[in-house]
Amino acid sequence: MMNTLGRAVTLTLFGESHGEQIGCVLDGLSAGIFVREETVARALALRRPAGSISTARREEDEFSIVSGVYRGYTTGAPLTVLIPNKDTRSSDYDSIPLRPGHADLTALMKYKGFSDPRGGGHFSARLTAPIVAAGAIVREALEKKGIVIGTHLSSVGKVCDRGFENLEEDLAFLADKAFPVLDGSAAEKMEAEILAAREDCDSVGGVLETAVTGLPAGLGGGTFRSVESVLSHALFSVPAVKGVEYGGGFGLSAMRGSEANDAIGLDERGEYYLKTNRCGGILGGITCGAPLLFRCAMKPTPTIAKPQETVLASEGREVIHSFHGRHDPCVAHRAAAVVNAVTALVLADLLAQHYGEDWLGEEK
Amino acid sequence: MMNTLGRAVTLTLFGESHGEQIGCVLDGLSAGIFVREETVARALALRRPAGSISTARREEDEFSIVSGVYRGYTTGAPLTVLIPNKDTRSSDYDSIPLRPGHADLTALMKYKGFSDPRGGGHFSARLTAPIVAAGAIVREALEKKGIVIGTHLSSVGKVCDRGFENLEEDLAFLADKAFPVLDGSAAEKMEAEILAAREDCDSVGGVLETAVTGLPAGLGGGTFRSVESVLSHALFSVPAVKGVEYGGGFGLSAMRGSEANDAIGLDERGEYYLKTNRCGGILGGITCGAPLLFRCAMKPTPTIAKPQETVLASEGREVIHSFHGRHDPCVAHRAAAVVNAVTALVLADLLAQHYGEDWLGEEK
Amino acid sequence: MMNTLGRAVTLTLFGESHGEQIGCVLDGLSAGIFVREETVARALALRRPAGSISTARREEDEFSIVSGVYRGYTTGAPLTVLIPNKDTRSSDYDSIPLRPGHADLTALMKYKGFSDPRGGGHFSARLTAPIVAAGAIVREALEKKGIVIGTHLSSVGKVCDRGFENLEEDLAFLADKAFPVLDGSAAEKMEAEILAAREDCDSVGGVLETAVTGLPAGLGGGTFRSVESVLSHALFSVPAVKGVEYGGGFGLSAMRGSEANDAIGLDERGEYYLKTNRCGGILGGITCGAPLLFRCAMKPTPTIAKPQETVLASEGREVIHSFHGRHDPCVAHRAAAVVNAVTALVLADLLAQHYGEDWLGEEK
Amino acid sequence: MMNTLGRAVTLTLFGESHGEQIGCVLDGLSAGIFVREETVARALALRRPAGSISTARREEDEFSIVSGVYRGYTTGAPLTVLIPNKDTRSSDYDSIPLRPGHADLTALMKYKGFSDPRGGGHFSARLTAPIVAAGAIVREALEKKGIVIGTHLSSVGKVCDRGFENLEEDLAFLADKAFPVLDGSAAEKMEAEILAAREDCDSVGGVLETAVTGLPAGLGGGTFRSVESVLSHALFSVPAVKGVEYGGGFGLSAMRGSEANDAIGLDERGEYYLKTNRCGGILGGITCGAPLLFRCAMKPTPTIAKPQETVLASEGREVIHSFHGRHDPCVAHRAAAVVNAVTALVLADLLAQHYGEDWLGEEK
Repeated sequence: MMNTLGRAVTLTLFGESHGEQIGCVLDGLSAGIFVREETVARALALRRPAGSISTARREEDEFSIVSGVYRGYTTGAPLTVLIPNKDTRSSDYDSIPLRPGHADLTALMKYKGFSDPRGGGHFSARLTAPIVAAGAIVREALEKKGIVIGTHLSSVGKVCDRGFENLEEDLAFLADKAFPVLDGSAAEKMEAEILAAREDCDSVGGVLETAVTGLPAGLGGGTFRSVESVLSHALFSVPAVKGVEYGGGFGLSAMRGSEANDAIGLDERGEYYLKTNRCGGILGGITCGAPLLFRCAMKPTPTIAKPQETVLASEGREVIHSFHGRHDPCVAHRAAAVVNAVTALVLADLLAQHYGEDWLGEEK
Repeated sequence: MMNTLGRAVTLTLFGESHGEQIGCVLDGLSAGIFVREETVARALALRRPAGSISTARREEDEFSIVSGVYRGYTTGAPLTVLIPNKDTRSSDYDSIPLRPGHADLTALMKYKGFSDPRGGGHFSARLTAPIVAAGAIVREALEKKGIVIGTHLSSVGKVCDRGFENLEEDLAFLADKAFPVLDGSAAEKMEAEILAAREDCDSVGGVLETAVTGLPAGLGGGTFRSVESVLSHALFSVPAVKGVEYGGGFGLSAMRGSEANDAIGLDERGEYYLKTNRCGGILGGITCGAPLLFRCAMKPTPTIAKPQETVLASEGREVIHSFHGRHDPCVAHRAAAVVNAVTALVLADLLAQHYGEDWLGEEK
Repeated sequence: MMNTLGRAVTLTLFGESHGEQIGCVLDGLSAGIFVREETVARALALRRPAGSISTARREEDEFSIVSGVYRGYTTGAPLTVLIPNKDTRSSDYDSIPLRPGHADLTALMKYKGFSDPRGGGHFSARLTAPIVAAGAIVREALEKKGIVIGTHLSSVGKVCDRGFENLEEDLAFLADKAFPVLDGSAAEKMEAEILAAREDCDSVGGVLETAVTGLPAGLGGGTFRSVESVLSHALFSVPAVKGVEYGGGFGLSAMRGSEANDAIGLDERGEYYLKTNRCGGILGGITCGAPLLFRCAMKPTPTIAKPQETVLASEGREVIHSFHGRHDPCVAHRAAAVVNAVTALVLADLLAQHYGEDWLGEEK
Repeated sequence: MMNTLGRAVTLTLFGESHGEQIGCVLDGLSAGIFVREETVARALALRRPAGSISTARREEDEFSIVSGVYRGYTTGAPLTVLIPNKDTRSSDYDSIPLRPGHADLTALMKYKGFSDPRGGGHFSARLTAPIVAAGAIVREALEKKGIVIGTHLSSVGKVCDRGFENLEEDLAFLADKAFPVLDGSAAEKMEAEILAAREDCDSVGGVLETAVTGLPAGLGGGTFRSVESVLSHALFSVPAVKGVEYGGGFGLSAMRGSEANDAIGLDERGEYYLKTNRCGGILGGITCGAPLLFRCAMKPTPTIAKPQETVLASEGREVIHSFHGRHDPCVAHRAAAVVNAVTALVLADLLAQHYGEDWLGEEK
């Protein structure tokens, strides 16, 4: 289960950057979920590199769903997405040194020279395309249940977006945004930051902030099935994520308890609610009904044209190398689609455990 | 598997703050691991509240190992640790309001009024005692294999410790330190910070930084079994942890790729090494042989004597309440023992998957 | 997860025959299940050796539930059962040869001499006591939902009981029967068979047949989560079980399709039903609403007083040995309680996956 | 994880009888396993219907391995096999009644009308083709380690083959036999039995017997990870299997202990061995070094041309129906390839847990 995520709803991922096909198997999904191919296509488009701030690699992401859907609805059997690899130029990668910051080195060590080195092989961020495809199907089904997921670029390099304010409006605004930033002037500065990095033959990192509204209270729980545990497990599987925090996160560690605690109130219907949300919607590892809030730190794209010290493995010697080719100066904005997808998959899994395996589907 | 951690080596946790016994079952451990009871006792002592900066609750933590050990060695059968609860004053918790920042609210909602409210029930940080006991056994076995784990208080409130410098010396220095801080003057300021919080009827958070030396390259891997994923899953199960970052973590998101990447070199024996370690010892989700480095953000202890807005559930009305009683103004230092334990458990699990189920034991 | 059964509802087992305590942790159970200690005691009594047809070992099975229950109801936290070992005579087992048909040999080989040899250690059938205790709690909760489980001794040696006829009456008749046989004259012959084996310093095997009524259609499914798969996994964990068959089982292999198939009909309410039940209530790995029917083959108790060829491991030489001591000439009737317990646990797990984690509990 | 088998080495299955593609993802496999496409093709050919005793459906089973293999060797990344569906005649299945003995009824009930009914959808025995493909790769790797798996038709209807005698010779004889019977005259009678069933518009069941030689002692173990448990879990996932027994199996239940026990001896090198093998190579759930022996009962093919009582679901009424079309009068011989494949997968999983994740691959 190295490449399988989840318990009740599971995603199994396969493929390599320059292999024949990449794809995934989404299993445990309720029967009766309507599958809209354009939803998948739109999500893939958001993940796809585009414009001057992205790699020149053209990924058309023609996908096909080859199992698990019949007459437009999920059947309860595993749903399989296939995406053929087309624009692969394997010659780019022949006899080049180990790319610092990549899995090149560890794949070589772990798999004793048998791993596929072309374009990062199975470790390529290209493998996030099937995750996005599967996540898009699940996310749309969650939306029909009133559960809305959205992610914005909280920062790129040292440029910051504003935080979430009115969640409903902000999430609506972010839907299908290729460069998901809440504050327009911040967006411009971020794009400038990315272009500046590219000009310097360099790259830049960023932070993604995600919110989920409409979640019921009571998901997760048990010491080792806390929502924080299960979700961070999935988020740290997204390439380039090196930090995850919930609600106030690292900021809470510098606060007093009286600042960090969220007061509890009763609303007019007698329902509990939190008067603030520094816990990020999770107390004791269980959702409390407040929006889920978390942030992912993305490291800068490791492949850069600036010369770097590394090793040419085939000749067993240190070299200084500039990695030219088609690379993204920033992946944080494209990763928003991946974080949304992964979040949808984790929530569908938790919801299936809570409400049973049928819950997400429609009635016939 | 709500309260079970791991795949090959698993920990199952049980008990409530004011129940008869708390404990854990450690399964999948190699036969032939020497179990030293004083190692367990010492680890429990580090987790135990002590002195003016801790709760007045006296926890003696008399433990017994009731299965899985024969003539001093693990047998390959599940090892069970039991810790009786003694100093419980359940009357303290009768008809008191929901404690903000605790699981009181979510346990009530999830378990529909059936959860044990006394002292937080199963959600009590008291449950970290068996984790520490089990982790101590595993950690000592790892040390015999040259794998050393250590944690220091990177910050308390706004007071910071210095970072790790010479790892070998620093980890030796931290061993069995009740207040694990590298810089003596920082330690004094931190204690002052904690006492100031207590005087204000408040509490304070902190950040823990952990290092592991001696790990082989090649652990982890597979998209959804990255070391970051598996370890963060466990770390976010530790009460009060709200953020986890590896290596440069959130700081990497503000860097350029040329700053964030670790140059790769070849040492005199022709082995690969990293010239820096901003990746925290993990590339592509796989250990690379460099020390594992990560940080956990701990929120302030939620139970404070300062008045807070909350709800008295039994009467269904909002109240303002001061939570008097025996509470820690800071738990970050005590949590170091828990983080070390959890780390040992996760590494033993990854090592068993990598090298097989016998690896950690001795030969007869 | 060597000693953990299940996914949503899990049982983790620990202890050794002559250790301090044996027990289990039952996790994932809905909150709000009423726990009646006398139900547990009664189930343990059925498993316990009694009378002339059983071992002379006196097992009082004083159990205590040390976590997971508050004011009589499950809390949603792990429920732990402890049973102290009292009547252990370890001297019986010192320097005796490997017992043929037992785990003595394989435990020695697998655990390299570190396993606990006293009374079979963790491999002792004594470990079925906590399974029975946990199963009794779950079984009673299932009965409140209309799901009734019962097992009879289909055969002992070559003596056969009649098959199930009127399931409702037969299951009611079997409830709490220490020697669960439907046909009184068969029961007498079986007891004679067992006593004859004892007189010959030998033992005898048997077959258990189990029925479950009241199960909803739709449990199980997915190629590798068929009810047959999941249930047989659990049943083959019961000591001495060497065969499992569903419905017509091995008998179906000698039939024509026209004999083996169950005709499908519509009842007066328009619901589907099977006109016969050779499939044992499972089609395509999924329950169909018909009673679940299966049979377990139990080998004869391996420990016998008749001389046998074996090896004295401590001296590394072949010997001929008679194993005197307190042993059962037949365990099949006592195993009925274990099979019922294991079945209850598996069904609770499948039901939680199907209907969600709350399903088995009451409302407050 | 409904359609995923295994822990360390996992197989995830997908596809429907009349969908676009069927296939599987084999994950957790060691890097460095040589993948011979003709081995896969030959195994698929054995599973494929052929000659007068099989269905007329032509399945060419053109497969492709689209991930996980690079320059002929496994890479450590998931290996994916795709098999396109070609000869599908969906019109055959339009508005036909529920087929007795199939998953038609339970799929309808469980998936509320959303399951794919064409040719049995995901429940079709066609789905065993990818299992066979994946199993063939693993089985060949096991053979290089000296572990040999073979299965013969122990019986068809009431006609019996002889049992295993000289295992080495018998397994060599069975290799790549399309109709795997040890005794030539039994083979002729079995074919006659099958043709007779076909002439009667009927079908016939059978029993498969499997042996594995070369397995090390010490695999499996832990109460709920016994080899019997894990293997039966997988075997009961093979369509039509309704019974599984190990060694003497159900026959042991009619024996005395003195007959059923296997005497233990020491060979000339001082190694333990069993003087007989009624335990089927497993004691206490752990392999003992003796050959693994087990038998699977296969029910007769449920689809028959003889008229049967059933229900036309679309019209909600009982009907009597003859299922004409391309169906096997017996599937037991074709299932031998599936049982061999499943056994190989389970053993690879147990071996990876025992010896670590690298064990099965070659060194570079």
